[in-house]
Amino acid sequence: MSCPQVRRAPLSRPIVRLLYPSGLSSAHLSSAHSTRSWSDVTAGPSTDQLTRLTEKHRPTLDRALETIRSRGYWSPYPEHPKAYGADGVPGSLDAAEGQAAFEALRGGRFALEQPGTDGWAGSEVSPYGFALDIEYPHADADVLLPAMRAAMPAWREAGPEARAAVCAEILAQINARTHEFAHAVMHTSGQAFMMAFQAGGPHAQDRGLEAVVYALAEQTGAAPRSAEWVKPQGKRDPLELRKEFTAVPRGISLLIGCNTFPTWNGYPGLFASLATGNAVLVKPHPRAVLPLALTVRVAREVLQEAGFSPDLVALAAERDGEGIAKSLAVRPEIRIVDYTGSTAFGDWLEANARQAQVFTEKAGVNTVVVHSTDDYKGMLSNLAFSLSLYSGQMCTTPQNLLVPREGIGTDAGHKTYDEVVADLAAAVDGLLGDDARANALLGAIVNDQVKERIDAAGRLGEVALASRTLANPDFPGATVRTPVIVKLDGAKPDAEAAYFSECFGPVSFAVAVDSAEDAVQLLRRTVREKGAMTVGAYTTSPEVERLVEEACLEECAQLSLNLTGGVYVNQTAAFSDFHGSGGNPAANAVLCDSAFVASRFRMVEVRRQA
Amino acid sequence: MSCPQVRRAPLSRPIVRLLYPSGLSSAHLSSAHSTRSWSDVTAGPSTDQLTRLTEKHRPTLDRALETIRSRGYWSPYPEHPKAYGADGVPGSLDAAEGQAAFEALRGGRFALEQPGTDGWAGSEVSPYGFALDIEYPHADADVLLPAMRAAMPAWREAGPEARAAVCAEILAQINARTHEFAHAVMHTSGQAFMMAFQAGGPHAQDRGLEAVVYALAEQTGAAPRSAEWVKPQGKRDPLELRKEFTAVPRGISLLIGCNTFPTWNGYPGLFASLATGNAVLVKPHPRAVLPLALTVRVAREVLQEAGFSPDLVALAAERDGEGIAKSLAVRPEIRIVDYTGSTAFGDWLEANARQAQVFTEKAGVNTVVVHSTDDYKGMLSNLAFSLSLYSGQMCTTPQNLLVPREGIGTDAGHKTYDEVVADLAAAVDGLLGDDARANALLGAIVNDQVKERIDAAGRLGEVALASRTLANPDFPGATVRTPVIVKLDGAKPDAEAAYFSECFGPVSFAVAVDSAEDAVQLLRRTVREKGAMTVGAYTTSPEVERLVEEACLEECAQLSLNLTGGVYVNQTAAFSDFHGSGGNPAANAVLCDSAFVASRFRMVEVRRQA
Repeated sequence: MSCPQVRRAPLSRPIVRLLYPSGLSSAHLSSAHSTRSWSDVTAGPSTDQLTRLTEKHRPTLDRALETIRSRGYWSPYPEHPKAYGADGVPGSLDAAEGQAAFEALRGGRFALEQPGTDGWAGSEVSPYGFALDIEYPHADADVLLPAMRAAMPAWREAGPEARAAVCAEILAQINARTHEFAHAVMHTSGQAFMMAFQAGGPHAQDRGLEAVVYALAEQTGAAPRSAEWVKPQGKRDPLELRKEFTAVPRGISLLIGCNTFPTWNGYPGLFASLATGNAVLVKPHPRAVLPLALTVRVAREVLQEAGFSPDLVALAAERDGEGIAKSLAVRPEIRIVDYTGSTAFGDWLEANARQAQVFTEKAGVNTVVVHSTDDYKGMLSNLAFSLSLYSGQMCTTPQNLLVPREGIGTDAGHKTYDEVVADLAAAVDGLLGDDARANALLGAIVNDQVKERIDAAGRLGEVALASRTLANPDFPGATVRTPVIVKLDGAKPDAEAAYFSECFGPVSFAVAVDSAEDAVQLLRRTVREKGAMTVGAYTTSPEVERLVEEACLEECAQLSLNLTGGVYVNQTAAFSDFHGSGGNPAANAVLCDSAFVASRFRMVEVRRQA
Repeated sequence: MSCPQVRRAPLSRPIVRLLYPSGLSSAHLSSAHSTRSWSDVTAGPSTDQLTRLTEKHRPTLDRALETIRSRGYWSPYPEHPKAYGADGVPGSLDAAEGQAAFEALRGGRFALEQPGTDGWAGSEVSPYGFALDIEYPHADADVLLPAMRAAMPAWREAGPEARAAVCAEILAQINARTHEFAHAVMHTSGQAFMMAFQAGGPHAQDRGLEAVVYALAEQTGAAPRSAEWVKPQGKRDPLELRKEFTAVPRGISLLIGCNTFPTWNGYPGLFASLATGNAVLVKPHPRAVLPLALTVRVAREVLQEAGFSPDLVALAAERDGEGIAKSLAVRPEIRIVDYTGSTAFGDWLEANARQAQVFTEKAGVNTVVVHSTDDYKGMLSNLAFSLSLYSGQMCTTPQNLLVPREGIGTDAGHKTYDEVVADLAAAVDGLLGDDARANALLGAIVNDQVKERIDAAGRLGEVALASRTLANPDFPGATVRTPVIVKLDGAKPDAEAAYFSECFGPVSFAVAVDSAEDAVQLLRRTVREKGAMTVGAYTTSPEVERLVEEACLEECAQLSLNLTGGVYVNQTAAFSDFHGSGGNPAANAVLCDSAFVASRFRMVEVRRQA
């Protein structure tokens, strides 16, 4: 999961200082490789509209292709709210228009003109304390799925380049409505506005575009459109074949959305599948329908305007307790499933949706090894921010902080275990001392289970930092809680029950360990058995650094070392950072790599005697 | 599965006329794309030996990388037996040396110096009628697997380029012993000598090298070794991170070999896993151990000489009825499984080896639509050859020939259904009329189940061509049978039981259908429900051609159209043809594409503040 570039100072409302991403100089593109331009490839069948879209998005797609190889910084979508509106992104909604658009959706029916609509469903309540009162079309899958299948041959025939251009246009039109999406994400996930704006807007769009260009690169790189195969036969005529290669979709792709990051976690799978020729059925989390319903609407409009059936993208909203993900996921028409959520249902999907490629992101236990630092203050403030952001409700938030019981070496002298924990608690307190700033960082608690975990944390061990309840002056119904830090002794077997499972939300454990080696041992075991989306470490010792690195390479976890400034372990940037590794139990897939797209299509060859 | 370039005329012993693959002119490389040279990438840690191997194999690897993009004809391994020996491939065994090497292995123990050897196993009997009497080391997995794991970090650290060079050296040393491998493949699979030589030798080596370069391209293309990430922050200092990316293996890869094509079907998975940093445990089919045991021995020698632990590749031979594939496949150390064989066990692996990536090739029903032709004679002789080669014991052999009951249009006038079937039967008879030629094409029946199917075929319908039993003068104990063709009425429900399941071996069904549309409908249903490795079609009608193509694109099957010359539907060429599609029930993977290698490794990122 991504996170916004929230800055801690200076404070103001909005307290968050943001910057336009300025142009990336070529010096930043320190790629070892040049990348074939997608425009080298002969275009497929096209209409005027397709040609226009292809021309319009070619530079963006080329740049994105370049960046996934160089992995420098780049984004086509501004992350500053002021970049949107009359003088900014062409045709985009400004702050007021975005808010008005969101308000206009409330209390109404969200029509989509999908085949097989047999009723209406929807019961979203904002974590900020009010009902959205929006109803979405409920689908008869026996009518909708055949319509989606029927839409696919023309989409397949259009070819990878046209599909990439159409996907880029969908993302561009979503981008223009970022202010509207920000409210939709805020009032379903509970993220604070600025985070909803950035992580739910441009950062999610980045991840979508990243998937589009991975799909483009895989499809065009897999084989040329056609080839001549000539096998010499000595004095006799050679054997000659003419071969044609077509990237074909697997079928219908099912996106099972999540509550906390409906767009950020949803776009990679949605766009990877769509760009590889599949139709995509979007099944949002029942508490976070709106951001994906808006996405589906935009996609359908763009597809239709480009001359394709809008049924290539459709919504499957559900009635309370209907649990349609389970029945949809095992239908024979569904050949791909993307899922973010609990380990239990992720495992169920992997075991049961056997007719499909299943990509999952599940629970994990993220560890930070705290061994030593030459910037004690920077370390504390960096960690405090990571624990506080979105009330720790990110799959990338650290949970277990492993601190040697004899303490750590720092630029401010030796610090005992107790001092480290107390100083971290004070850093969190300081960061969240101003209620306005705290609200802008914490957002709201997404559901009652998280609240219950916070309340129960005190029973797990000695509380080093108690959770406070804050009021949100704008939204009196919001549940706002600061993080809790609990001290645990790693040597005591009963402590393991607490730190050795995911405690999703703003609960972290300061686990006293015997030594750095002990910490690395526990890190290894945690990643191997429980999985991890992120690992962090602070050390000035090359030997400890080597041990931690080796553990992450062997157990397959993404590692951030000695972060003390404005980048946090829970942040990943599209086009540069891999989100998850796909090699430990927290996720079987990565956002984004070749493996995430390569099996979403197949290459069919037709060969003829020449 | 591949097949040899067996030519039907002129006849001589060896009756098969073969040609050296001559150099490929640049005109054949009709690629739309240029490919980044792997030599652009900074080399990893290296020793003198590694540097030597890297220099030695760079041109071959570069050329292979180029060819998987252009998909023209190319092979680095000569397919003519005379290319091996004193004046041919340097250091290679000639025919007599190869045979002597094979004979020297018989009646002995095949030592491998593997950790955990706790006994000896082996009971291979040649389909040509004699026992090999070779014993192989039996492994205690609890000792062997930890040794294999321990070998992996150094192999990972060597990097993708060094691994590719070592793999290429293994293949080169296997290539030099092609004459020895030919006997090993012949006397385990029952293939005739020339087919065992080619399909088991250079063609299998081609598929291995293809997997190596796919792995190389994926690993080096996935990310640069390192990147600088610089995010502008307006007037303030930019955020800067230094990132390092390492391709890490999944764990131990298990290859479950097959009886009929131990090397051809085994090498892609073996080399894809090894080249991506994994250790590979090779569990051969109990009746086809020797070709893979030889492979393991060569791999271990090359690895050791290059400074790595030989335990990166090991053999798991089994005692009669031990069924170790089942217990090995679900061990936690096993993270990748490659399997070729029955649908029942393939499905079991997919359902149960949940801790692993499972790549399977299973049963399928291959169809040829016979609608019309402008080369009736060419069509008949091409089909007759396809049905006869290796007694139809290829996963790519056509089974169902769909012929309209009102007959077909040809350059020799209208032919009724009965005429088409009778003419095809005569073509097979003609092709196999000479016993020496027949033996060289048919090889031996691989096991009693195939023989039983041939004998039972007559009960399924009217026999258009009965199977004959031939003597093999060189091997009196060989079971040699010619193909049987059975006529079935596609409109009769009871016929479906026969043609709607795989009847592995030289049994094909001439199914009378109502029309071309009826044929395409049955083709679709067969591919969707039963899977297919190959589809063929003969038609002069653009409309029927379009229908068949559309069916193959939608149902995801590889199509060969109007083959009447020296290329057969059951042949695929490495670097150019995809073997299987991975998109229908016959196989969940393709030899070879990006998806076949991309999930065998993960990319781990370590990032630090710059």
